[in-house]
This record gives sequence, structure tokens and C-alpha cells, in this order.
Amino acid sequence: MSDLKQIGFIGLGIMGKPMAKNLIKAGFKLKVHSRSCGPVKELVEFGATKASSPAECATNMDAIITMLPDGPDSELVILGQNGVLEGVREDAVVIDMSSIAPGISQKIASSCEDKQVGFLDAPVSGGEPGAIDGALAIMVGGKQAVFDRSNGIFDAVGSSYVLCGDYGAGNTTKLANQIIVATNIAAVGEALVLVKKAGLDPQKVYDAIKGGLAGSNVLNAKGPMMISGNFMPGFRIKLHHKDIRNSMLTGSELGVSLPLTSLIQQMIVSLVNQGKGELDHSAIATFAESINDSKIS
Amino acid sequence: MSDLKQIGFIGLGIMGKPMAKNLIKAGFKLKVHSRSCGPVKELVEFGATKASSPAECATNMDAIITMLPDGPDSELVILGQNGVLEGVREDAVVIDMSSIAPGISQKIASSCEDKQVGFLDAPVSGGEPGAIDGALAIMVGGKQAVFDRSNGIFDAVGSSYVLCGDYGAGNTTKLANQIIVATNIAAVGEALVLVKKAGLDPQKVYDAIKGGLAGSNVLNAKGPMMISGNFMPGFRIKLHHKDIRNSMLTGSELGVSLPLTSLIQQMIVSLVNQGKGELDHSAIATFAESINDSKIS
Repeated sequence: MSDLKQIGFIGLGIMGKPMAKNLIKAGFKLKVHSRSCGPVKELVEFGATKASSPAECATNMDAIITMLPDGPDSELVILGQNGVLEGVREDAVVIDMSSIAPGISQKIASSCEDKQVGFLDAPVSGGEPGAIDGALAIMVGGKQAVFDRSNGIFDAVGSSYVLCGDYGAGNTTKLANQIIVATNIAAVGEALVLVKKAGLDPQKVYDAIKGGLAGSNVLNAKGPMMISGNFMPGFRIKLHHKDIRNSMLTGSELGVSLPLTSLIQQMIVSLVNQGKGELDHSAIATFAESINDSKIS
Repeated sequence: MSDLKQIGFIGLGIMGKPMAKNLIKAGFKLKVHSRSCGPVKELVEFGATKASSPAECATNMDAIITMLPDGPDSELVILGQNGVLEGVREDAVVIDMSSIAPGISQKIASSCEDKQVGFLDAPVSGGEPGAIDGALAIMVGGKQAVFDRSNGIFDAVGSSYVLCGDYGAGNTTKLANQIIVATNIAAVGEALVLVKKAGLDPQKVYDAIKGGLAGSNVLNAKGPMMISGNFMPGFRIKLHHKDIRNSMLTGSELGVSLPLTSLIQQMIVSLVNQGKGELDHSAIATFAESINDSKIS
């Protein structure tokens, strides 16, 4: 069993709140901090204690988990004034489970190393249902020894976790994940608009193809949303927008040409301009609708 | 049980040969015809009789199945001189399981109706393994009564079959299937080139993402081929090329804008120009390699 038993958890959003609850259920002692009071109150009723700043949340903890919207949030909460690194003790582990640019993960890792604090970037895939069920796929970057110490934590929130490489590798892997997911959603959307324009029933097409090579977790989870036109989030387009932007930035830094990802980015920018940023990312499929004045549903 | 017991089967290629064998195993009487002698001999040893032309293959049969490379082949074999419609009797059913343009299916259907012959377009997904295992996903277009009469045949070669609409709907659905498959392959390729350029091990990335929302039948079946660089066909790029070309043609006929499919078509044209047309379609992933002077494997 790991030596990491007391956890400071920062960021109780759609993902963070159920993850924190699963950690409590698994026997970890939690101290929590979040910008909004509601989820903090809910977690305190669930058995957590409360901290009024990231620094206080990190104090005397074995591990600190952050689950935040984007890289600048992680930087501020971990490296900023009253941040995690002002409270954390030596040999603790900071696990940033936010989905952010790999370069920022590497910067945070470097500051943690300067303080003899372990660091992992450990973004997840699986969305709110995965967070609630403790069934997230966790993509980890960092050192093997720190990863090994953290396995008990990952067991409590995930169904799989893989050390993909050194600092930043978790978030690089997450970018790959998000490229594949967004492109698949867009392709399903384009295909369903084509069949709808040909006079077919998209539901029948969905039934016919889901068992073949076109079958995917995206098709199973998102196809019915496209067919019904119900895009209640879930994971919002504006957050996928950030991931695709980070993919293009990382590609640019590494000198990698990403033509498909680039087209997906343009589609998402258009959808945000259409006022769809708050919809579930399955609505990326509606780009094909918008350029064809058509509806899948 | 269906009244369709005696089947003329035309086209014993990679897909047709195992499908014909599965029909014999299921108790159907088969008469076969194919351009190459080897598979015909093999099927005759397996219990089939032999016909020297499509017309002869169709004579006195309850159903005629064609499994051919492209639309012009289907037109020639069914409508041409010495073709199926010269031999077929009234009330028989012609089932074209080739993947062709929906417009050609509709043209063939019309000629069949003129002769009081039933017609279904019934392309498949699942590749050679699906054909061997009798586990194809079959996408069908045509009339309900003819579809119902043909269920016993589909049971023998497929694990699922759905009537997607009227004549051509099977092939329209197949186009949707092929758009999704090719785009997903290309997206996985682009994502894996990105992580490779970032210094990660694509195998670890594959392990980390396959259980999440990026997971798919393409990732399971084709990811290992990309990572090992083994693109033995399987389903060749030049055949996927034809399907994507038919998708763009159908989109053009219907006035549907298909930007992702269009980009995929350009990638495939480039791969054919690189001499990769005979590779498995998983090698669509190598487009990202070719533009980045990189290797996933």
C-alpha cells in the first residue's frame, strides 16, 4: 500500500467533485479547496475538511491533487501566491489531473523538483460518467517511483492508468486522445449529414454500422445524442476547443504538421462563433449540419 | 425459413470466397463463378457447382449474390452481355454485396424490377476476418419483403444486418461507414506522429487511451499495425480510395459539403502516389508520417 493517505484536493468541478468523493470512499483522508462554495460544503458533509487557500490545502498532506480548467489555472494554483508550493512539505506528491499544455506541466514539474516535491501530470479521459464511476482512463507523465507511490490514488478514481513518459507525457497523450475523439465526432457528423441528405434514417444507419469497423466509444456514447439533437453537457465544446488549441500549439512547438487537427480547430472556432461553446462536444457533429443547412435529428 | 435455397455466387475474391464457404456450411446449394480459376476450383471441392458465365450462374437459382470490386463490375456482371439478368428467372433475388456508388445500385435495381426480379444492395463491413467468421455487418437497401426473404442468407455470412432504406441505402450507409473508418485511421496516425515527435512511446500512448473515449474498433484492429509498421492487407488503400471517391461523388450529386472527407481523399491520393495503394488501409495513418518525415513504428 502506498504511503500517500492524506490528500489535499483542489478543484471540485464536474470532474473533481465525483473524483474527490471516490477517494473518500476508498479510505483516503481529504482536505478540499474550490472557488465555489457549494461543492466544498457537499464534500465536507461527505467527510472532507476544508481549506481556504491552495497553500492551506497542501499543508501537511501526503499528496495534492489539482483538477482545474486550463494551464494558467494550474500555474496560478500550484506556483502562484498562496499556492500549493507555499504549503506543501518535502517529499509530498503534486498530481495535476487537469488537461493542460504539456509545456506548462514541465514548468510546474521543474518548480516542484526545486522544492523536493514529486510531480505527475495525470489528465483523464472518460468524462463525468467515468469520474462518477471511478472508471477514468488516466494518462500519466513523470518519474516511475512517484508513479508507483501514486497507484493507490489512481485505483480509486480510474479503471486504467499508464505512465506514458517523463513530465508532460500525460498531457501529450491527452492531446492525442482529444485529437482522435474530436475528429471521430466530426467524421460521424459529416457521415450522418450525408445519409440524412440522401433520405435515410440516421438511426438505422447507426444501427447498421455500430458493430463494424466504424464502431467506437464515440459512436456508442455520442451517436444517440447527435440523432436526438440533445447536446446537454457533459464535456463542453469550449473545453475541447482548449485541448485542440493546445494540440496545435504543441505541434507548432515540435514542428509537427497536423492537417486534420487544424481543420477540426477551424470547425470548433466556427461552432463557438455560432454560440455552441457551452454544448457537449458531441455537438462538434453539428458543424456538418451548419455548412449544409441540414439536421441529423 | 426463407424460400431462397439455391444461390448463384459471383466473385470469389478475398471477401467472396469465405462468404461462399459459409453459405455452403449453412446448408445452401451454391453455383459459383469468378474471373480466376483457383477459387472456383476450391469452392467446387467444397461442394459448389461451377458456371462459366454470370448468366449461367444465375439460371434456375433462387438468389444471385455478387461480390465485386466496384460499380462498373456490378453493372457489367448483372446488366451486361451474358450477365445475371440474361439467366435469372422471375421472382428470384439479386443481392449485390459489392461496395459501390448508391446511384449504380439504383440503376441496377431498376433493371431488376423491369424483369420482376428482386434486388438488394447489401455491402458489408468487417473485412476478411469478418467474412471468414461469418461476422460481417451488412448494410441493406431495398424493399422490406425482399429483405425478409433474404434473412437466412444474411444470417449465414453476417452478425448483423439492417435494412437502412430503399435501393441504394445500403451503399449510402457503407459510404458513411467508410468516411468514419478512414477519418479515424488518419486521426490516430496524426495523433501518434505527434506523440512520437514529442519523444513518447506510441505503444504506451495506445495502452493509455484505448480504454477511454478515443477507443474504437479501428484503434483496436489498426493501432498495433501502425505501431509495428506492418501494413499487410487486409483491405487495400486503393479500395478505400474508391469508397471515398464514391462518397465525394455522392456528396456532389446531393449537394452536400464534406470537408473532412475531402481532406481524407487528398491524403489517400497522396498515398497512392507514394506507391502505397496496395497496403492495408491502416496505412492511411502514414500520411502524417510522410508529411512530417517521421515514423510511428
